[in-house]
Amino acid sequence: MAEIKSLKSTGVQDECGILGIAAKCEQEIAHDVYFGLFALQHRGQESAGIALSKGDSSVAYYKNMGLVSEVFDQEKLSIFPYAKTAVGHVRYANKGSNNVVNAQPVVFFGRYGRVALSFSGALINAQQLKDEMLKNGHIFQSSVDSEVLASYVNYCANDDAVSGAINAAKKLVGAFAFVYMVGETLIAVRDGYGIKPLIMGERDGDIIFASESCALEALSAKIVRDVLPGEVVVVDKDRNISSYFFTKGCKKPCIFEHVYTARADSKMDGVSVYESRRQAGRKLAELYNVEADIVAGVPDSALAAAKGYSEVSGLPFTDALIKNRYIGRTFIQPSQAMRENSVKIKLSAFAHNIKGKRLVLIDDSIVRGTTSKKIITLLRQAGATEVHMMIASPMVINPCHFGVDMDTKEQLIANGRTEEEIRQIIGADSLHYLPVESLCEACGGKEYCTGCFDGDYSFDISGYYPEN
Amino acid sequence: MAEIKSLKSTGVQDECGILGIAAKCEQEIAHDVYFGLFALQHRGQESAGIALSKGDSSVAYYKNMGLVSEVFDQEKLSIFPYAKTAVGHVRYANKGSNNVVNAQPVVFFGRYGRVALSFSGALINAQQLKDEMLKNGHIFQSSVDSEVLASYVNYCANDDAVSGAINAAKKLVGAFAFVYMVGETLIAVRDGYGIKPLIMGERDGDIIFASESCALEALSAKIVRDVLPGEVVVVDKDRNISSYFFTKGCKKPCIFEHVYTARADSKMDGVSVYESRRQAGRKLAELYNVEADIVAGVPDSALAAAKGYSEVSGLPFTDALIKNRYIGRTFIQPSQAMRENSVKIKLSAFAHNIKGKRLVLIDDSIVRGTTSKKIITLLRQAGATEVHMMIASPMVINPCHFGVDMDTKEQLIANGRTEEEIRQIIGADSLHYLPVESLCEACGGKEYCTGCFDGDYSFDISGYYPEN
Amino acid sequence: MAEIKSLKSTGVQDECGILGIAAKCEQEIAHDVYFGLFALQHRGQESAGIALSKGDSSVAYYKNMGLVSEVFDQEKLSIFPYAKTAVGHVRYANKGSNNVVNAQPVVFFGRYGRVALSFSGALINAQQLKDEMLKNGHIFQSSVDSEVLASYVNYCANDDAVSGAINAAKKLVGAFAFVYMVGETLIAVRDGYGIKPLIMGERDGDIIFASESCALEALSAKIVRDVLPGEVVVVDKDRNISSYFFTKGCKKPCIFEHVYTARADSKMDGVSVYESRRQAGRKLAELYNVEADIVAGVPDSALAAAKGYSEVSGLPFTDALIKNRYIGRTFIQPSQAMRENSVKIKLSAFAHNIKGKRLVLIDDSIVRGTTSKKIITLLRQAGATEVHMMIASPMVINPCHFGVDMDTKEQLIANGRTEEEIRQIIGADSLHYLPVESLCEACGGKEYCTGCFDGDYSFDISGYYPEN
Amino acid sequence: MAEIKSLKSTGVQDECGILGIAAKCEQEIAHDVYFGLFALQHRGQESAGIALSKGDSSVAYYKNMGLVSEVFDQEKLSIFPYAKTAVGHVRYANKGSNNVVNAQPVVFFGRYGRVALSFSGALINAQQLKDEMLKNGHIFQSSVDSEVLASYVNYCANDDAVSGAINAAKKLVGAFAFVYMVGETLIAVRDGYGIKPLIMGERDGDIIFASESCALEALSAKIVRDVLPGEVVVVDKDRNISSYFFTKGCKKPCIFEHVYTARADSKMDGVSVYESRRQAGRKLAELYNVEADIVAGVPDSALAAAKGYSEVSGLPFTDALIKNRYIGRTFIQPSQAMRENSVKIKLSAFAHNIKGKRLVLIDDSIVRGTTSKKIITLLRQAGATEVHMMIASPMVINPCHFGVDMDTKEQLIANGRTEEEIRQIIGADSLHYLPVESLCEACGGKEYCTGCFDGDYSFDISGYYPEN
Repeated sequence: MAEIKSLKSTGVQDECGILGIAAKCEQEIAHDVYFGLFALQHRGQESAGIALSKGDSSVAYYKNMGLVSEVFDQEKLSIFPYAKTAVGHVRYANKGSNNVVNAQPVVFFGRYGRVALSFSGALINAQQLKDEMLKNGHIFQSSVDSEVLASYVNYCANDDAVSGAINAAKKLVGAFAFVYMVGETLIAVRDGYGIKPLIMGERDGDIIFASESCALEALSAKIVRDVLPGEVVVVDKDRNISSYFFTKGCKKPCIFEHVYTARADSKMDGVSVYESRRQAGRKLAELYNVEADIVAGVPDSALAAAKGYSEVSGLPFTDALIKNRYIGRTFIQPSQAMRENSVKIKLSAFAHNIKGKRLVLIDDSIVRGTTSKKIITLLRQAGATEVHMMIASPMVINPCHFGVDMDTKEQLIANGRTEEEIRQIIGADSLHYLPVESLCEACGGKEYCTGCFDGDYSFDISGYYPEN
Repeated sequence: MAEIKSLKSTGVQDECGILGIAAKCEQEIAHDVYFGLFALQHRGQESAGIALSKGDSSVAYYKNMGLVSEVFDQEKLSIFPYAKTAVGHVRYANKGSNNVVNAQPVVFFGRYGRVALSFSGALINAQQLKDEMLKNGHIFQSSVDSEVLASYVNYCANDDAVSGAINAAKKLVGAFAFVYMVGETLIAVRDGYGIKPLIMGERDGDIIFASESCALEALSAKIVRDVLPGEVVVVDKDRNISSYFFTKGCKKPCIFEHVYTARADSKMDGVSVYESRRQAGRKLAELYNVEADIVAGVPDSALAAAKGYSEVSGLPFTDALIKNRYIGRTFIQPSQAMRENSVKIKLSAFAHNIKGKRLVLIDDSIVRGTTSKKIITLLRQAGATEVHMMIASPMVINPCHFGVDMDTKEQLIANGRTEEEIRQIIGADSLHYLPVESLCEACGGKEYCTGCFDGDYSFDISGYYPEN
Repeated sequence: MAEIKSLKSTGVQDECGILGIAAKCEQEIAHDVYFGLFALQHRGQESAGIALSKGDSSVAYYKNMGLVSEVFDQEKLSIFPYAKTAVGHVRYANKGSNNVVNAQPVVFFGRYGRVALSFSGALINAQQLKDEMLKNGHIFQSSVDSEVLASYVNYCANDDAVSGAINAAKKLVGAFAFVYMVGETLIAVRDGYGIKPLIMGERDGDIIFASESCALEALSAKIVRDVLPGEVVVVDKDRNISSYFFTKGCKKPCIFEHVYTARADSKMDGVSVYESRRQAGRKLAELYNVEADIVAGVPDSALAAAKGYSEVSGLPFTDALIKNRYIGRTFIQPSQAMRENSVKIKLSAFAHNIKGKRLVLIDDSIVRGTTSKKIITLLRQAGATEVHMMIASPMVINPCHFGVDMDTKEQLIANGRTEEEIRQIIGADSLHYLPVESLCEACGGKEYCTGCFDGDYSFDISGYYPEN
Repeated sequence: MAEIKSLKSTGVQDECGILGIAAKCEQEIAHDVYFGLFALQHRGQESAGIALSKGDSSVAYYKNMGLVSEVFDQEKLSIFPYAKTAVGHVRYANKGSNNVVNAQPVVFFGRYGRVALSFSGALINAQQLKDEMLKNGHIFQSSVDSEVLASYVNYCANDDAVSGAINAAKKLVGAFAFVYMVGETLIAVRDGYGIKPLIMGERDGDIIFASESCALEALSAKIVRDVLPGEVVVVDKDRNISSYFFTKGCKKPCIFEHVYTARADSKMDGVSVYESRRQAGRKLAELYNVEADIVAGVPDSALAAAKGYSEVSGLPFTDALIKNRYIGRTFIQPSQAMRENSVKIKLSAFAHNIKGKRLVLIDDSIVRGTTSKKIITLLRQAGATEVHMMIASPMVINPCHFGVDMDTKEQLIANGRTEEEIRQIIGADSLHYLPVESLCEACGGKEYCTGCFDGDYSFDISGYYPEN
């Protein structure tokens, strides 16, 4: 299939996984980035890239469409030289932007030499920043926020590269985390509300930044701490670490990371994702009393919640659904005969385990509701006599402005509907959602951005988005 | 990387997933084969292929290296015409034979026109059959058993294509299941001991054969019955079904299908694979009493056994390991820093769940033991204070002659070692295996081929293989 | 674009370039085959392949769709081991058979071990041979004559591999040349009329067979002699050469090789192709007297004839057309604006050279006539005042049954038309063809197969083809 | 082969073919660009690209490594919408820069919206311009002059896009031609000395700019005139044409276009390339009297000169060498046996035509001399008794600073050597060069840049390059 690229000015937002390594001495650093990205693969499957800095003189990089394991093979990795400093990226693409031009890291030559930048998040004021630079005579070769950011960070640099990151961060409006490599200096930046995650680790003196702790774990690194809201951490070429704050940060991280996005074995801002999910399940059981025989979770993200539910309710935790592990990225239209229930491609029911049983089914969230309906049908066909749906998060009633790919407000099933109306649409015997307070408690009681559930975004976005 | 093909005469054995559809009327049959193969993907990830018969006049086919979702896309599937009869194949390749020449279905023109054949298994007497045909002036263009079989089935046909299948099957020694499409006739054959699985399903008058019932499920077909040991089932072009026996069959299917190979939601010869595994876990708990805090399984195949163990022992079933879902087919050598424990690429430990706990860890089997050792190290690093290993099958002490890819006898960790010696090598606090009788009971008490565990193969293979 | 392969029984004929090397000692033989094939590329651009024999124990091969330079790169060639014996092939495909399954060399395992065969030509009785082998229980995995031949040569072998070639050759009806590698023995065979070319060369004791002498030249080998009609030349593993005749040969080679197919610098059966073409041009000038200012040839194949014409007529030889050297294999439909004269994609007129001139234009032959018409239009637009067309061969009025890809009789412009009618269609001011006797004289006066011009094929084909 | 990209700041210069179309109404414009680029393919085989403007709202583009016929197929072209305005590019890459990031057209979003630019030439002051923009906070994502130019043209725009082209052109030092598409406006710019060619054509009201007239010819367009040195031609969206001069131009075009670069059927600044070459050959014959039997040219570029020589000298014009038409872009190391004369891969000698003859061989130029030596050896081996070399241009003694890819001064064979010394190195019986005045006369007597021959560049470059 030909992909004729189209250059439009519409901003395209990225959800992604980012990684940066500042090692003490030259090593096979591309291999480490590879395995770190591999552990972040769940954050983005569209493109992958690695850039490393060889002293001050050059940046070597490679990026392409596909999974980490598709983009890189042993031969490609071997071509990368030994080096001390590198960044990597895996990208999740919103519709219409699947193009290698948009792959990251963004690599460029600027005021302070050769630079590579890996960005995750969404800039609400990207167009304003772009307009400012356009007025100053800049050009843009892609339509992604990451190019705007790369250009802006360079544009704002006066004294040195670090000043660029700090000055730019002050002007950025949105949710973001990025790592920024200038020569052998590595700079890590997290937005003022800590909406996007960014964690720092250490392995034998090597400093590592990653979107999630599971990448540190994969590299046998220990967690040092989360980068703080509003913080700029600089690791210089001698590996001295310094910290700056571009704003007085206020922690309100994205709660959807705990609900769905993050990997269960990660720890975010000190809170275990697995434990958050398990606690959410426990709270569902405490809140809602349903007569049933067994409890099951939709794999993979709702299994921990199902276990929590089982612990409190006493209902046996059961495998009700099996997920096909070989789902590719190509969507194939099923034949007419199969179209009745296309979810079968991805999920099969364990008829043996659920036949004749009243089932409590836990899912992490409902966005459009179409999959929920198909899963319930599948379970009934496999013999479940009742299906009681429990959602380990509240109703999603608002779109996310910070880079989580939810549908427009109109497509959200919970938009303007009651729980009962939703129950009827998806065909469950009963339906319960976890209240937002309970979810927060499950996630450690801290302050979170819960905008998609209750409109309480980390900060006031009314100036940037039309009301919808 | 260039792949210069090498033609050698050494027999190459195939483990695979096979599928055949004999539909009542012309339909998007390639799509159905696609989704059926998709559900069989766990049986082979090396190559995939689809062949369909358009009346008597032609066979259209496509096969290539890769996963089903990589080999086929919407465009490729769309080129296939509507048709009534088709076969498909996914291939698992033993070392050194990863070559598109060996991909299946084998498609050829023979005595009774155009034919396509999908084969799973291993022919012990392939060389003898080949020699017989070489003497008769035949040629062979690949080194796989499937070409020998295709040629032999044609060679043995006297009256019609069906006679070829029956006559050939009488002479085949080994474990095999194959579907064989001649014009619009579909023939399904299973070896005399039923070592390889083959099941028949039905959907609105369409007859479907598959290696496992999960493929029938994916196609919304109902199980009719397993093809019997020694049986040849013929579905003619009017979809009349007839059955022949080339030998008085004696059921001794491969027990390793239940232990590892098959998908948990499949039913084989009437026995649920999930239930076999759960029962094996229960039996472990009944047999061995270990002081511990929690029980966990190695994902994915040992989770059902871990649940069974939990039910009987009362130990809480816990998630101790998470599997990376994006493992590609390219193996990348980790960097020096990561080489200490390469299992981290595939598995992460849930430190939160196991810290300070005494853990019972269930695995389905141990072949070489290297992975077990790494997993135990990983769990201890994550904080487990004790790791008690329980294996839901007996010690593997013999190679498989029927197509399961085990190492040579020398490489099997259980070869010539006691349980205690193995325990020390893998570093467990204790180690227990399930006795072969208990495993058989867990699998429904039927007769099974348990050769890899106790040398009791389905039949006497001493004439075919040197003693080792 | 997906290429779903279709297995049909219709015979597909090959025009091709073949090459075989029997070296004295092990060397980088794959490189030599590469450059030999490169010099034969004009004989077939569809697929290319190399197979070499490493002692008796194995055959290594690689073949794929594309030009020699596309199929092989340095890396692929480097994987081939040093060896003494190799064969190669470039393929021209008739419509509908562009499929890697049909690429050559054909490599197989047969009665006398591992074999590779490169074939050029067309077997009129392929179906009969196939039927005989089908009755004997053989199977066929492609639809090309080369597989039939490979199978038949093996089938006919009784004493040894050489006997197979001799016995088979006796039964083959058609035009053919092939090289056949069994272990380190190399066998070269040419049909009883020598219709297809095959020449033997020598370089420091290495024996080389090729379709044309230009391949010998490229390898710095000297011409030894042409393989004779009906001859089988055997080079054994000690490089002893022996010769056999499967029939009393009678030389009637294809005259179209001189007209169009062969490269100008080749010598075929002792006759220089360039000289044949030049003489054809001279004879045109002797026969037809046209008032004109300049003479030009259609590049590349008619340039030699145009020079000959210039020598005799005294008209200045002029460059009137330039050929685009970067024509790819993809055909692109021109835009509406360009459709008026699509020949412009391939040819440009030198307006500077022809403006206001009366032009004699020489072409090698006219098959359908559509290109001739476009060229004449192009020249007139560029300013030629008169275009007198001279064809350096007779009218093509019959299809070729021996593998030259001409249109069906109905599509031949000369079928049922007079010279005057053709002149009007193509829009020339005058039109002259070279009589068949003159063409033969130009080609050295020897006996040739001139079937496409006068129906006088090398032998009686009436039993094999319906009259059309 | 992996291509890990490396971002360095070294300027990379481009020789290229450029094309722009401003059509009256929407049409299949991508097809026209395709065929126009196809005719310019000889100017660059590394990458190809097409960009079109769809109203003001978007630019669609596609570019990739490879020949025009490799980069685009029918499917890719079909995806491009009908449009009125488009630009295209084929790229010749100097060593080390073969990377898709460097492919053109450069497409970006700037002050005046979406823009695409196709550039040919070399900017001597690229680094200075880049430094100026770096100071202003710009970033650069590649290392090619085209990105610098694109950025600078945008940077210099104050009133409108046209002002950017004019203001920028005033500051550019070097040889350049570019077409620049802003919305539906098309702007064509040629350097102040007209070093790089750029011609304007017309077809039914559509305005076309191209590097050479042969592209106009291919599109059935008529030559309007050459763009003048220092001229900016603007075709607005209503297809009104206006002309601006950013400097008082002074015509000194590159004479090497006539010697080698351009296609023989092109007309440059009113002079026929074919005729220039023919006249150069005639002048050689007038100047140097050599006793010989025949004259031949090295194909393809020296054939016209050989004809001119033949006309004056009376020696018969003969085909002495044939060029292999299937040369790919992959270089394969020949085997040991072939290494003696690797030119055989590309050229074969017509032994038949030259045996026993004293030969005058015309070549267009000698740069390093290694090929000349091999060709002379080849001709002698084929039987030529004497080889008298005549070069249709002067000795190349200086590198080109304007984008023609010549070796460094040290590698030029004529650097510091006499004609006699060169003759001995290449092994000719005699050697003669055409004096620079004669060459200029052959090219119409106009002023040319002849810097590579005599150091007389179009303008004083001493401030930009160190003396070497």
